[in-house]
Amino acid sequence: MSSGDHISHKFDEEVNEVTTRVLQMGGLVYQQIESAVTALLTCDKALADKVIEGDVKINTLDVQIDEMCNRIIVMRQPTATDLRLIMAIIKITNDLERMGDEAKRIARQALDLVKRGALPDSFDCMEQMATRVKEMLDRSLDAFARKDVDEAFLIIGLDGKVDKDYENLTRQQITYMMEDPRKIHASIDLLWSARALERIGDRSCNICEYVIYLVKGKDVRHIDIKDLEGHL
Amino acid sequence: MSSGDHISHKFDEEVNEVTTRVLQMGGLVYQQIESAVTALLTCDKALADKVIEGDVKINTLDVQIDEMCNRIIVMRQPTATDLRLIMAIIKITNDLERMGDEAKRIARQALDLVKRGALPDSFDCMEQMATRVKEMLDRSLDAFARKDVDEAFLIIGLDGKVDKDYENLTRQQITYMMEDPRKIHASIDLLWSARALERIGDRSCNICEYVIYLVKGKDVRHIDIKDLEGHL
Repeated sequence: MSSGDHISHKFDEEVNEVTTRVLQMGGLVYQQIESAVTALLTCDKALADKVIEGDVKINTLDVQIDEMCNRIIVMRQPTATDLRLIMAIIKITNDLERMGDEAKRIARQALDLVKRGALPDSFDCMEQMATRVKEMLDRSLDAFARKDVDEAFLIIGLDGKVDKDYENLTRQQITYMMEDPRKIHASIDLLWSARALERIGDRSCNICEYVIYLVKGKDVRHIDIKDLEGHL
Repeated sequence: MSSGDHISHKFDEEVNEVTTRVLQMGGLVYQQIESAVTALLTCDKALADKVIEGDVKINTLDVQIDEMCNRIIVMRQPTATDLRLIMAIIKITNDLERMGDEAKRIARQALDLVKRGALPDSFDCMEQMATRVKEMLDRSLDAFARKDVDEAFLIIGLDGKVDKDYENLTRQQITYMMEDPRKIHASIDLLWSARALERIGDRSCNICEYVIYLVKGKDVRHIDIKDLEGHL
């Protein structure tokens, strides 16, 4: 084995290790989102508290993964292509960490609802939105693990549906608020949570963009998806 | 000049170049926030449109800076300390780009207000909040340029005031909505914009945390500021 092969072998090994850690972090974030939404829909104070406390695990993984990536860069002096992979991992981790923050925000809104005791008239759209967003996250992590560009494009395409859910939910809650102004507080809590979910959907799209970037070598973050397909 | 000195000299030169670009990007983002808030407060459609169109400049700089940083890593094979600086730059750029997105969101809310023609009862708190947030961004860019850790801590300390402004504004708007439900739509537009400003404040704090990280070599993103001072 030449010294070059040796470095490359070590690099692959370390990247696999850090990838496993990212997927583990993704699984935790998924669970936090799920629990936060359940806490909101069922007004479960204990569960909301658990989500808020659980965020520290995600933050710890965030710092660990960052350190692992920095160490790989310094030790292995990657080529441009290898560096692209490390950079994608760093950015995916950053988005996952922020999704964890959004889950914590939803849990806080759940606590607000519990404290006030006044519920919004309906949680319609919220459950559907949560299901869609969780699916996007799950599939984007899978697309990253398998470096599947086609799947990444499909997931980005789903975001429009989440935006539609969000619009419907907003419209509906505004109608409720107009009918019964005493519900305004509760409806606004729900709107904040829906916005958090919508952001989680956006961040799953970010993950997909990094997958495209790392496979295709093209930074597609600021290009419209319609202009993209066929050009890569 | 030894070969090591030569690499280090080149590294410094390139890092200075990319730092200039980051500060230029920061200036643009500042201007976008200022224009977006003005467009909202004065219901200026043309200005809001300009902000939305202007976002592309920020996105272009984002991609350019990322590419510059990647090139420096591959070409100069930085040490752990030098890499920390590059990583801080990459993360600061990411936060600046997201602040640009928030400015665009505010501009979109301004367009919504213009379209509906119904204004919220008061823009109180919004102007004060905008002033504070702009100051935080401006000072955090300066702290980055001068690698000033003390200033970074001071700026992070300001964020509590922005959060207070935001709470006051929310409370006030909820009162208006209860008094006159026809204003609900407009008040919610304003709440979204205030939330965007609040996020911009958070992101200025992120920049400060990266400044602390690059100078002190300590990742402080998930540590409470009260636990931090004196320990570094």
